Amino acid sequence: MTKRIFGHVPGYPEGSLFCDREELYEAGVHRHRQAGIAGSQKEGAESIVLSGGYEDDQDFGNTIIYTGYGGRDSKTGQQTHDQPFTRWNRALAYSSQNGLPVRVIRGSNHDSPYSPPTGYSYDGLYTVESFWHEIGKSGFRIWRFRLVRISEHFAPGQLIEEEQADYSVKRQEVRVVQIVRDTAKAKEIKALYRYKCQMCGTRLKCPAGPYAEAAHVRPLGVPHSGPDSADNILCLCPNHHVLFDNGAISIAEDFSLIGDPGNLTVHRNHHISKEHLAYHREHLLVGFYEDL
Amino acid sequence: MTKRIFGHVPGYPEGSLFCDREELYEAGVHRHRQAGIAGSQKEGAESIVLSGGYEDDQDFGNTIIYTGYGGRDSKTGQQTHDQPFTRWNRALAYSSQNGLPVRVIRGSNHDSPYSPPTGYSYDGLYTVESFWHEIGKSGFRIWRFRLVRISEHFAPGQLIEEEQADYSVKRQEVRVVQIVRDTAKAKEIKALYRYKCQMCGTRLKCPAGPYAEAAHVRPLGVPHSGPDSADNILCLCPNHHVLFDNGAISIAEDFSLIGDPGNLTVHRNHHISKEHLAYHREHLLVGFYEDL
Repeated sequence: MTKRIFGHVPGYPEGSLFCDREELYEAGVHRHRQAGIAGSQKEGAESIVLSGGYEDDQDFGNTIIYTGYGGRDSKTGQQTHDQPFTRWNRALAYSSQNGLPVRVIRGSNHDSPYSPPTGYSYDGLYTVESFWHEIGKSGFRIWRFRLVRISEHFAPGQLIEEEQADYSVKRQEVRVVQIVRDTAKAKEIKALYRYKCQMCGTRLKCPAGPYAEAAHVRPLGVPHSGPDSADNILCLCPNHHVLFDNGAISIAEDFSLIGDPGNLTVHRNHHISKEHLAYHREHLLVGFYEDL
Repeated sequence: MTKRIFGHVPGYPEGSLFCDREELYEAGVHRHRQAGIAGSQKEGAESIVLSGGYEDDQDFGNTIIYTGYGGRDSKTGQQTHDQPFTRWNRALAYSSQNGLPVRVIRGSNHDSPYSPPTGYSYDGLYTVESFWHEIGKSGFRIWRFRLVRISEHFAPGQLIEEEQADYSVKRQEVRVVQIVRDTAKAKEIKALYRYKCQMCGTRLKCPAGPYAEAAHVRPLGVPHSGPDSADNILCLCPNHHVLFDNGAISIAEDFSLIGDPGNLTVHRNHHISKEHLAYHREHLLVGFYEDL
């Protein structure tokens, strides 16, 4: 299988129309021929197809309450048992936890004013704001996902490579670069440390998988222009990320922490730029410069 | 002094023009007659005026690199010593740390293509994405703030009271409701616990002030429709906030934690709704429902 794409698929902008599932599949926009959700529980959900399968779905256009997979009788389509927290349901939970964008496709048989008259339409990127479970209309446990449309002002592919290009989308970037980070270098670094914080060793164990954050030592964006490369990324728990970004903690050249006892844990395969560390001490650390 | 307003001032939409500083002051859009920054280090910065005072400012329109206050000779306006991390500089750092919006006003004497021809123009809300220090053009330490414009799609006042009203702005809400939360009930609860996490007692000490997060027990927004009231808010560290929102941890009726040893610390003046706790256990907690 080719590498998963989280975001727009090149060549298929929002609004692209498809005759059938096969065409969707061939385009790589929804890479599963039958299932409503494409993705994996280890990497997240790439895309979903709304096609009228679930009686509990609610479509408000920019907000969608989406029902997970499973628990249905294959013949009648009726809900006959509880939905599991596995596979695609967990994939959507993973996407929620890690802020990954999900492609939303509507089919003509999906009962909504936003559905296309025929075939399928690719309707853009959504984030999975939250996930939860409840007893559905049929009396069985279902998983639910609140999907919220990502503003059309943001053109995702663009920001990955050309971070400084367009100031008008900078606000969206806050959320979106975080998304993008997770798919590339950031994920690599987090995996290297098995999601344990390099400052305190904490590993947050969540149902959809462990959680850690990628912190850039020299910040991205003007005027710092730090690179999104492994030598500029740390794996931190959210608490230490806040302390690091807000100038409470920095790192000395010998990897001892400034502003906190202890040392930064550094994996032998992780080269951290001394230059970027110096930049953080010099410009981001507040305690070093002024006693509070 | 009247209560600080973080966000638009009612009656003065983006694009409002003012003849002079006095008019700005009277309107409550920039509530300091001389200083470029209005606000306090305990509550954050409400607004800034760009009026050509600092040689280091850079204005890209939607992104502004803004220089802090102080360090200048009152007669010549030249930078003659280091800028301190106090008062208004710290107010902007506080706004950055806590995600508060800042009103930006441009004066005609500010050297930028975005300045008005005469007087002052209110140019909308910006977030302080980051703050740092560096040696300025004059050879002295200056504080710098990267301000990024909040999309015009978001009408801030609106969301505070009418959370469910407009689905088209739901995405912005992610960031913005967090902002709004901090000014009202959330701040009250955080102060009650002196920014210590109710689950682990951690208090993150940052240069601009302590940091904690307000976690809603029953989530806001459809379909949960949890209220933004004290009985539905907890003061948590970012780590426990992640665990709580992602269904790793919940709270029993007797305040013992589920999924983690220990108990929730509850202040005698903090009434937490048992109903909302039950909602979280019932719908958000994953471990309780399915063993992973």
